[in-house]
Amino acid sequence: MKIAISGKGGVGKTTFAAYLIRSLKQQGKTVLAIDADPDANLAQALGAKNAFEITPIAQMKSLIEERTETKLGTMGGFFKMNPTVSDLPEKLSVDADGVKLMVLGGVKAAEGGCICPESVLLKVLVTHLVLTRDEVVVLDMEAGLEHLGRGTARAVDKMIVVVEPGTRSVETARQIKRLTQELGIKNLLIVGNKIRSERDRDFLINHMPDFTFMGFLPFSEQIIEADLDEKPPYEKDPEGLRIVSDMMHGFIE
Amino acid sequence: MKIAISGKGGVGKTTFAAYLIRSLKQQGKTVLAIDADPDANLAQALGAKNAFEITPIAQMKSLIEERTETKLGTMGGFFKMNPTVSDLPEKLSVDADGVKLMVLGGVKAAEGGCICPESVLLKVLVTHLVLTRDEVVVLDMEAGLEHLGRGTARAVDKMIVVVEPGTRSVETARQIKRLTQELGIKNLLIVGNKIRSERDRDFLINHMPDFTFMGFLPFSEQIIEADLDEKPPYEKDPEGLRIVSDMMHGFIE
Repeated sequence: MKIAISGKGGVGKTTFAAYLIRSLKQQGKTVLAIDADPDANLAQALGAKNAFEITPIAQMKSLIEERTETKLGTMGGFFKMNPTVSDLPEKLSVDADGVKLMVLGGVKAAEGGCICPESVLLKVLVTHLVLTRDEVVVLDMEAGLEHLGRGTARAVDKMIVVVEPGTRSVETARQIKRLTQELGIKNLLIVGNKIRSERDRDFLINHMPDFTFMGFLPFSEQIIEADLDEKPPYEKDPEGLRIVSDMMHGFIE
Repeated sequence: MKIAISGKGGVGKTTFAAYLIRSLKQQGKTVLAIDADPDANLAQALGAKNAFEITPIAQMKSLIEERTETKLGTMGGFFKMNPTVSDLPEKLSVDADGVKLMVLGGVKAAEGGCICPESVLLKVLVTHLVLTRDEVVVLDMEAGLEHLGRGTARAVDKMIVVVEPGTRSVETARQIKRLTQELGIKNLLIVGNKIRSERDRDFLINHMPDFTFMGFLPFSEQIIEADLDEKPPYEKDPEGLRIVSDMMHGFIE
């Protein structure tokens, strides 16, 4: 199964991704986690001890140039759209507590150009990975919508959109739904995060009658504390992990 | 003066931008506000009654193709790097309560390509706008770092980075500082947002000794309420407007 997690910036995509990845791991799955956000931090959220040793794909200039036949550092240029990628997960992932982690990586230089060639490589990687029944790929996407313009997640089976109480993240979810349908991804699920009260929960349900909710996570001061202490969220807030494990039943197995 | 506002997703860039724009307007400046986030919402934060009438620049396909000499909808291609733009603010802005507002706009179609050509147009626009003493351009940038890879904000005088208590938005601020220096932008200011206590404030000051703080804004339930009710933040939380007006002294005049 291939799952992408998206949503407006700051709604808790990476926190939810960390919970989901841990839950899948606890269920005995082999998980390949891919941090596809150029402003990356999934490594920290997964408690990867060696976060600073990870070489982001985007920094492997010669690899990207070789596989996509692009000259990086230029705005524009034409890319080879189906490079060979099957060896990359073994070659480029690190171990984060039993989970394989790959990082698309950052914006290395100002005016270094856009990250389209890197995104093409990632898209092809996700498309061509052949998985067994017990293997799951989880992609933590960049905030917002541009990755959908690039079609990075075209080959995923499920798109999980994280929202928080408020019109802005709901509007982003609507845009994601529209673009996801154009990509041919049929399975879109919503997770409501930072729920402070029944009113917050009802707000989301009432504003999103045409969406399928996978579940809700409470507002948690411990998540903020985890970030202050540079710890994975599930160390400070194990209850969140239990809630996510429960909400997967019937949706992700 | 040309000001860009950036930071990690969800820290409150757009909320701060709305406060700043309102404050500048109250001081008698003529403000051109540019929403450069493809997952856009500055219009709502500024209380633009006609938010749905705004044609995002990104949707003006023929205009962008004409000015940048690109064929949109392709990944790659070469763009003309200095199109003519001086007529665009008059032609493309709407009035939001006395402020001129332009919207770079959204990702129109899945796999429609990246927004590099649109970003080139915006970069040239910001570079070539000649301002009088009483005119200010405020750019609300997209979340994260990619806009710095594109160099969209190269021509701004000041980069204001919004952070919240926690290591993740601080790390993003460090990356923005590095990339901003490469772009030659000398003036970088920090605004600490969502401050719950002295401890939160001290966390930011202690973790960012090499940054200049412009000021701090408290955590505010009213801001969440404003989003729930689709109102500008300063309608629900006028105190924030006063704080931002005060923090501008000595930094922005």
